[in-house]
Amino acid sequence: MDSELELIARLRAIVEDGALGAGPAEVVLASGDDAAVTVPPGATVTSVDSLVEGVHFRRETASLRSVGHKALASALSDLAAMGARPGEAYVQLGVPADLTDTDADELAAGLGACARATGVRVLGGDVTRAPVLWLGVTVVGHAASPEELVSRSGAVAGDAVIVTGELGGAAAGLRLLEDPALAESLSREDADGLRARQLEPEPRLAAGAALASAGASAMVDLSDGVAADAGHVAEASGVCLVVELEKLPLVPGLGELARAVGVDAAELAATGGEDYELLATLAPGDVDGAVRALHGVGSAPTIVGRVEVGSGLRLVDREGAERRDLRGFDQLRVQRSPYGHA
Amino acid sequence: MDSELELIARLRAIVEDGALGAGPAEVVLASGDDAAVTVPPGATVTSVDSLVEGVHFRRETASLRSVGHKALASALSDLAAMGARPGEAYVQLGVPADLTDTDADELAAGLGACARATGVRVLGGDVTRAPVLWLGVTVVGHAASPEELVSRSGAVAGDAVIVTGELGGAAAGLRLLEDPALAESLSREDADGLRARQLEPEPRLAAGAALASAGASAMVDLSDGVAADAGHVAEASGVCLVVELEKLPLVPGLGELARAVGVDAAELAATGGEDYELLATLAPGDVDGAVRALHGVGSAPTIVGRVEVGSGLRLVDREGAERRDLRGFDQLRVQRSPYGHA
Repeated sequence: MDSELELIARLRAIVEDGALGAGPAEVVLASGDDAAVTVPPGATVTSVDSLVEGVHFRRETASLRSVGHKALASALSDLAAMGARPGEAYVQLGVPADLTDTDADELAAGLGACARATGVRVLGGDVTRAPVLWLGVTVVGHAASPEELVSRSGAVAGDAVIVTGELGGAAAGLRLLEDPALAESLSREDADGLRARQLEPEPRLAAGAALASAGASAMVDLSDGVAADAGHVAEASGVCLVVELEKLPLVPGLGELARAVGVDAAELAATGGEDYELLATLAPGDVDGAVRALHGVGSAPTIVGRVEVGSGLRLVDREGAERRDLRGFDQLRVQRSPYGHA
Repeated sequence: MDSELELIARLRAIVEDGALGAGPAEVVLASGDDAAVTVPPGATVTSVDSLVEGVHFRRETASLRSVGHKALASALSDLAAMGARPGEAYVQLGVPADLTDTDADELAAGLGACARATGVRVLGGDVTRAPVLWLGVTVVGHAASPEELVSRSGAVAGDAVIVTGELGGAAAGLRLLEDPALAESLSREDADGLRARQLEPEPRLAAGAALASAGASAMVDLSDGVAADAGHVAEASGVCLVVELEKLPLVPGLGELARAVGVDAAELAATGGEDYELLATLAPGDVDGAVRALHGVGSAPTIVGRVEVGSGLRLVDREGAERRDLRGFDQLRVQRSPYGHA
């Protein structure tokens, strides 16, 4: 292993490799000084997120490239949920003694690839020794004004509830990684797809921006699953969200896997975290425009419920009866991030 | 131990307790949503820093209140070194299984006290399980424009080199904490003072702002010691910094402790990290104004050297001969943050 100073130089070169477009904030001073200096436009959006070895990932089942990617991607998901334009990132790295130079290069390559794919500049960081590999990521996004951004607290009775993409994939992928024999119940393509949802999630930045422009009244990213995150919107907005379990869009292969483990697929989709899709509420008159805008950025939304007067989240079945005590993948209890962000 | 959701609510209440003045950035949305939203003034300054149990502190010798304080204070020191006004902070917390509710409260109390003392608002964070206690802090400062800020790269030949405060205290305090019998060579007041320098450092925010206003050409905070940090200014500025060892201001008690451990006090002061004083370079015509401005904020500066044409740092003795292979506290090698920040 290089010395820390050599390591940081290597990481910086890899993360910053490649031409980066101009972000929403002017960068006056990047890494190498006491702090980074930027001149941001009107509103700044900031979130922090952590990935800890043994808590959020295991090196036995996740490549270091995917760990680097996921650390940045999962943090950026919070910016997507505000409808913010991604700008800068700062990375705190805890390096265990057994991390080799090749390992560090892979980690940096994953971070760098995600940064380039999303137009994010990594402006600074901190490297320290640590007992396990740990990544703490700070992401900063921007908007012309706060009014362009979408919080969790604007949902009103009568709004529709929509989600982007397909759900349950990340949790199913984790289960496959931990129990590879389960892949026998799936096509190879579906199994690969589920594992990719776990290992290399994509922050829905374009979808978030489209939803914000289309007038979304509230938005949240699905880091802990609909069953948890929709409740956050209900609580912050002081309303009741009614979500129909059968309408949740299932990721390909989830049905087969659900049968193999003997759990209802919709329950897995509702409880599975780390999909990093978005859930938004929209006034009825804004739904069509939002759906068109999402299709325009390659996202296929699904209307999964409605906002009512009341409080909390009601997950209901086809007959409108509330469902409680949903069953999910037990493994998530030890691997999933314990609670929401920022 | 509370659940993570209960813990974050407790921590938030403690950290945010007390009336906070309006900071330099308007805060539109604080913790509890996907991300925080601010409207900053012209320039934003960002730095990240980490404290890891077993690397930067041990719970046997540092109270959790002091750990919480130091995590924020050491991060803020980077803002001081830019001359920025402190604004917001975000805290990532890794919580080991043996951390009790009382421990968490103490940690939060230390963080909150430092935030209140410096006018910083803690706007968000992330809590996760971890094998050891770990704090990752992101600090954000502000200035009306980038031109008000001071980087490491503006020193020019002919400038004077000054430092704030007194040096060597944090390293000496760590040595006392690790080897309590050494306190017998010191007055009780000096021993307490040295330990306080290690456990509860104060970011020199007012001094940094005063130096920036007085025209400092370059500035750095002394997190790793003059022998390392002055070299960063020399390298970034493309000049040679000549620092006279005998002129380094020694913290009270350092002389006695140096005799007890058989090391030159000036060498300890030059190599000891974590003092979080500032080193700045100033054109000769700006020195008097800077000294007055520093006295005005309760800081006693010392001129310790000069900037010359050339490269690197030259630490010289009374006769002008360069000194190499300085001896410091060996213990620092395992406890000090391995390298600089952001």
